Amino acid sequence: MKTPKISEAVVRRLPVYLRYLQHLVDMNIRTVSSYELGQKLDMNPAQIRKDLAYFGEFGRKGIGYEVSYLIEKIKGILKLDRNLNVALVGAGHLGIALSNYNRYTKEKMSIVAIFDTDPAKIGLSVGNMPIRHIDELDRVVKELDIRIGMITVPATAAQQVADRLVEAGVSGILNFAPVSLRVPSEVHVRSSDVTTELQALAYYID
Amino acid sequence: MKTPKISEAVVRRLPVYLRYLQHLVDMNIRTVSSYELGQKLDMNPAQIRKDLAYFGEFGRKGIGYEVSYLIEKIKGILKLDRNLNVALVGAGHLGIALSNYNRYTKEKMSIVAIFDTDPAKIGLSVGNMPIRHIDELDRVVKELDIRIGMITVPATAAQQVADRLVEAGVSGILNFAPVSLRVPSEVHVRSSDVTTELQALAYYID
Repeated sequence: MKTPKISEAVVRRLPVYLRYLQHLVDMNIRTVSSYELGQKLDMNPAQIRKDLAYFGEFGRKGIGYEVSYLIEKIKGILKLDRNLNVALVGAGHLGIALSNYNRYTKEKMSIVAIFDTDPAKIGLSVGNMPIRHIDELDRVVKELDIRIGMITVPATAAQQVADRLVEAGVSGILNFAPVSLRVPSEVHVRSSDVTTELQALAYYID
Repeated sequence: MKTPKISEAVVRRLPVYLRYLQHLVDMNIRTVSSYELGQKLDMNPAQIRKDLAYFGEFGRKGIGYEVSYLIEKIKGILKLDRNLNVALVGAGHLGIALSNYNRYTKEKMSIVAIFDTDPAKIGLSVGNMPIRHIDELDRVVKELDIRIGMITVPATAAQQVADRLVEAGVSGILNFAPVSLRVPSEVHVRSSDVTTELQALAYYID
């Protein structure tokens, strides 16, 4: 089945389903209903059924979804069933925290290189990877076939790092710096900024 | 004007507008068009006009939006024009990185307390705040009128921390642990998890 183009909202929810389904596997639970998923994920079961039905009929009435089958399906849709190499630029506290990603994931997507500009950091090891100078970025991105760049540098340096990542050939950027990046339309950017997250949350606080 | 209830998607975009508008103020730029905003934020100008028109007619044709007026309006909508105290639980690399938030923001929302369980960390100072033991959480949340909790502990401890935050009386949680939290319906949760972000991004990588 060819996967139809899906909305960004659904793309955002699929990894959340996946995370919980993998937790069920760890607990040896083999089937799950949309009602249970809704309860545990604090989401509307009808929304979950709708999201999942979009990719074909996975669930069976009265039995629910087969966990392992659903995991394979979602991984297929998100294209997680392939190797996907990630570079991290910025080896400060945030970069070091995020470099732990590899340690906790069973995915084929992994951080394979870390860059910084601080001479005091170059050569140090983070998560079994050496911190490399940013001047090596272009060469390493090409050599290791890196497709995604994570930006954890200060706001003032973020656009410049994004430009270098794009020039080196990445097709996706996950930006943690508090600034909107400008990239060519073929490059996809997702942003995660604690200030905007907190401000959005403030709206809901009475 | 009473603000109508707005969608989560709009609530998520308003802080992004705000961030760029504040950047314009820093550059002494007084008016901006939806076209310019769209260009700089990599967003559709029609979407921006629609989002902003929702709260009344801010913009004038041919002149655009008055930056400082728009900032005040958005701050009002997000209720950022009041003090809002935040607690951070988990003083690892991520917690320390996020505690820098106060240093870069001019908002009235600020992190006022940091908690951990590691005896080696208690009493140390991060961003001019002492790291306190989590057993002080309930008392400090009440004393400092803390309304939002940020969770930067490992996944295995996150639900327990959320329970304690809710019990202490916070109404919002920003969760960085890779797990879906269950909270009472009156508590609003936003999540930021690098794994789900990367997985969502993977969908767009050819």
